[in-house]
Amino acid sequence: MSASQEVERWDIFQLDLTGPSDGNPYTDVTLKAEFSDGDQAVTARGFYDGDGQYAVRCMPDTPGEWTYRTESSEPALDGIEGSFVCTEASDGNRGPVRVADTHHFEHADGTRHSSFGTTCYAWTHQDPAVQERTLETLAEAPFNKLRMCVFPKWFTYNRREPVRHPFEGGASGDPDFDRPDPEFFQHLEDQVAQLRDLGIQADVILFHPYDKWGYSDMGDEADDRYLEYVIARLAPYRNVWWSLANEWDRFDDKDESDFDHYFQVVQEEDPYDHLRSVHHLSEWYDFEKPWVTHCSIQEREHQDMAQWVDEYEKPVVNEECGYEGDIEKSFGSISGHYMMNQFWLGVTGGGYVGHGETYRHPEDILWWSHGGDLHGSSPDRIKFLRDLVEEAPGPLEPISMKTDRPPWGAHANEDYYLFYFRFYQPSLWSFDLPDDGEFELEVVDPWEMTIRPLGGTHSGGDEVELPGDDYMAVRARRVE
Amino acid sequence: MSASQEVERWDIFQLDLTGPSDGNPYTDVTLKAEFSDGDQAVTARGFYDGDGQYAVRCMPDTPGEWTYRTESSEPALDGIEGSFVCTEASDGNRGPVRVADTHHFEHADGTRHSSFGTTCYAWTHQDPAVQERTLETLAEAPFNKLRMCVFPKWFTYNRREPVRHPFEGGASGDPDFDRPDPEFFQHLEDQVAQLRDLGIQADVILFHPYDKWGYSDMGDEADDRYLEYVIARLAPYRNVWWSLANEWDRFDDKDESDFDHYFQVVQEEDPYDHLRSVHHLSEWYDFEKPWVTHCSIQEREHQDMAQWVDEYEKPVVNEECGYEGDIEKSFGSISGHYMMNQFWLGVTGGGYVGHGETYRHPEDILWWSHGGDLHGSSPDRIKFLRDLVEEAPGPLEPISMKTDRPPWGAHANEDYYLFYFRFYQPSLWSFDLPDDGEFELEVVDPWEMTIRPLGGTHSGGDEVELPGDDYMAVRARRVE
Repeated sequence: MSASQEVERWDIFQLDLTGPSDGNPYTDVTLKAEFSDGDQAVTARGFYDGDGQYAVRCMPDTPGEWTYRTESSEPALDGIEGSFVCTEASDGNRGPVRVADTHHFEHADGTRHSSFGTTCYAWTHQDPAVQERTLETLAEAPFNKLRMCVFPKWFTYNRREPVRHPFEGGASGDPDFDRPDPEFFQHLEDQVAQLRDLGIQADVILFHPYDKWGYSDMGDEADDRYLEYVIARLAPYRNVWWSLANEWDRFDDKDESDFDHYFQVVQEEDPYDHLRSVHHLSEWYDFEKPWVTHCSIQEREHQDMAQWVDEYEKPVVNEECGYEGDIEKSFGSISGHYMMNQFWLGVTGGGYVGHGETYRHPEDILWWSHGGDLHGSSPDRIKFLRDLVEEAPGPLEPISMKTDRPPWGAHANEDYYLFYFRFYQPSLWSFDLPDDGEFELEVVDPWEMTIRPLGGTHSGGDEVELPGDDYMAVRARRVE
Repeated sequence: MSASQEVERWDIFQLDLTGPSDGNPYTDVTLKAEFSDGDQAVTARGFYDGDGQYAVRCMPDTPGEWTYRTESSEPALDGIEGSFVCTEASDGNRGPVRVADTHHFEHADGTRHSSFGTTCYAWTHQDPAVQERTLETLAEAPFNKLRMCVFPKWFTYNRREPVRHPFEGGASGDPDFDRPDPEFFQHLEDQVAQLRDLGIQADVILFHPYDKWGYSDMGDEADDRYLEYVIARLAPYRNVWWSLANEWDRFDDKDESDFDHYFQVVQEEDPYDHLRSVHHLSEWYDFEKPWVTHCSIQEREHQDMAQWVDEYEKPVVNEECGYEGDIEKSFGSISGHYMMNQFWLGVTGGGYVGHGETYRHPEDILWWSHGGDLHGSSPDRIKFLRDLVEEAPGPLEPISMKTDRPPWGAHANEDYYLFYFRFYQPSLWSFDLPDDGEFELEVVDPWEMTIRPLGGTHSGGDEVELPGDDYMAVRARRVE
C-alpha cells in the first residue's frame, strides 16, 4: 500500500479522476464525493477541469484520517474510494473566517480576525505583469481582505477586454454559458491561493452588473450551474468569502428574489459555510435574512456605524466608503484624510471598513479595479489603525448609539477603550470610563500616526486635558 | 412756529411725553400714536421710560413731512399732535432687511444683504469693559448680524449674575414682571444702536430656556406685556430681527402653540414687520407657518442646505452649525476648518450660515455668550467667503438638490457659478455650466484664501484639470 496523501488542516485535498471528454461534461456529468473523518461527513460537488480530467476537492477541518467515496452519473467516476491524512495546520494557517461575538470575525482556530479590506474588482482580468504587481503591492499593504469579481468588468476606466474569458466564445463576443473555460478558473484559483498565502481573504463577488458580454444575465439555469461550478472549485480555499453581487440593486434583470435564490444555492453548495453577503448601491438587501452572515454596506456620507451595529445582530462592514482618488466621480475622489476618517468612524462604531483607491494613472491602472500600485495617503494610516485594533484585548463594541456627537467610542471588555473625535477639538474631556478603575490615557493622532501618553491615571468622570486638535483619538487602558 | 424736527429715513423719531409716575404706568397706562406721511399710517405703541417720562417712537420709511397724534388712557398723554420731517437716508443707512428673491435678503433701499452672522447670546449682560471690547471686535470682524438675548443667561460657562436685570427685583432673586427696569432696556437699545452703526443686524432673541430667575416662565399675561414693551422700544431700530427663542423646544412650560401666539403678538405689535423666526435644538418649528419670514436652523452634522432651500419658500439660515472652540461640549468644539466647511456648504446650497466661538478662556469670556475677543481660525475664512459672495452679481441659488455628491454648487443668474468640493479632490471635472457661453474658471482655496485663474475659457461639458486637493472651490464667470 502506498502511504496516504497528507493534507494540512484547512488546506485542499484534491481527488483527480479521469473520465469522458466527449459530449459536454459540464452539463451532462454529475459528480460528488462524501468525505468523512469518521465523525462527520462533508459532501462536495466535483467539477470537470478539461481534457477528460475531473476533480473533487475537500477542505478537511479535523486532523486525522479522512475517507471518501464518489457518486457520479458516469460509471468511470462512480464509487471510487480512498483516504488521506489531515495533519495539523502549519504556521499562518488559521482556517476560514467565521462570525464570532455577534458583530465580529475570527478564524476557525479561534484567532481574532479584524477585517481591513480593500478592493481590486477586476485584478485577475489584467495583464499578467499587472497581476504580479498587485500581489507584490498587497504583500506590503495593510489589507487582509480583497473584494474581487469572478466576471470581467465593463465600466468607466474599464473598457478593455479581459485577458481570458470565463466561458468559451467570450473573446469573440458570444460566450457559451454551457462551456466554462477551465484555464480561466484555474487562474482564478491560483490567484485566490496567492492571496491565501499572503494572509488575505478573497471576497469573491459572484455577480455584478457592469458587463457587456452577457454574464450579468445568463438565465436562471446557467446562473445556478455557474454557482455550483465556482463553488465546487473555490469553496475548499479557506480564505474565500462569498459576495453575491457588487451593487445587486443595479441589475436590469435581477431582483431581490433572484438574490434570495442565489444565497440559497450558495448555502446549499458550500460545504464549509463560508461567509456570505451582498453589496448594494443604494438599496440595502435585507441583511436580516438568515442566509446573510454579515452586512456589506456602501455608505460614503452617513456615519452611523454604531446604529447599524445595534440594528443588525451581525458584523457590519462598510465595504465601500468611497475610494481615495482624484477621478471625475464622486465615488472615486475622496481624500486620504476622509478615508482615514471613515476607517476610524467604522472601527469606533464597532464595525469594519473597506478601502479602495482611484487615482488617475497614465495607463488607466486604478487600484480599485485593476490593482497595480497604491498611490494614496490612507493605506499607511489604515495600517496604523489596524495595528492599534489588533493590539486591543478583544473585538471593539460601540459605547454609544449617538452617532452625531463626539467622541465616537468603542471598548473591548472593561479594560480597553478607543475614542475618536472627528472634526471636534476639545481641549478638555471627561471620558465615559468605568469609575471602578484607573486607566492610562494616550492621545493618538490618526493622521500623523503618533501615540503620546497623557501621563498619570484617570477614571470615569475625570476631566482630562487634551491637545485640542481636530481628528484626535484617545486610547484608554486599565492599569488597575 | 419752531422748525420741524428732522429725522432721516429708517432712523428713529421719538415723541417724548410727561405723564403720571404714580401707580404702575407699565400696567395701567395705554399709549399709542398714529404716524402718517399723508399716504400711509403707522400705529406704534408707546412705553413708560421711568421718572414720569413716556415715549412713542416711529421709524419713518418715506421722506417728507410726517404728522402724528397720540391716543392714551391717560388724558395728559392723549390727543397730542405734531409733525416732523423725514429726510433722505445718509450713507450707510440702507434701511431694514427684508426677504427678497424668495430665499434671500435685501435692505429696504434695494441693496442685497448676504447674511454672515455670529452669536454673543449674553453680551449685553457682561461687564462694561467686555461689552466695549465686543463692539471693538465686531468692528473688525466679518459679521453683519449678531444673535443676542434680551434676558440674561444661566448655563454652563454662564453662572454669573448679569450686570443689570430686565425687571425690578431681579438682582435680589425676585423679579417683578410688572415692573421693567427702564435703564436695562435703555442700555439694550444703546447696544442695538451701536450694532446698527457698525452695519450689524441685531437678531434679538426674545425668550430662551437657560434661565434661573423666572424669565422663561413669566406667565401668559406678563409674556405678552413684555413683548409689547420690548417691541415698542426696539422695533424702530432698523437693524432689528426678531428671534422668538433660542431652542424653543427646550422650555419646560412652553410648547409650539405658545410660540404661535408669540409670533402673532410680534406680528401685530411691530409696525415695520421686521424679520421673524425661531431657533430650535432638535425639533424644528413649522417654518411654513405664515408668520415665519425665514428658517432659523441649528444643524451641525447634516449638510442638506439645498434640500432645505428647496423645501421652504423662505430664506434658510443655519444659525448654529456648531461653535468653533475647544470646550468639553459637542456644540462648542468644532474645528475652524469644519466651520469654514459649514459656511461653504451653506452658501453653495443657497442658504446662509451663522458663526459662533467657544474657546476656553482664563476668565471664562467665551465669544458665543460673553463676546470679548475672537480667537479662532474661521473668521478670516468667513470674511474671504463673504467678500466672494458679495462680489457675485446676485444672490446664489443651488444648482442641484443632491446634497450627497460633489460639487455643492450655486449660481447667480446664468453668468456666475460657485462650486465647492468638500472632502472630494478630483483632478478633473466637467462643470454643470451652460453650453451657450464661455466662462473663466478660478480655483479657490477656502482655507488658504487664494484665488487662482485656471486659464483659458470653458463651457458646459468641458473637462477641466483641477489641482486635486480636498476642500477646493471653483468660481466660474461668464466672459461671453
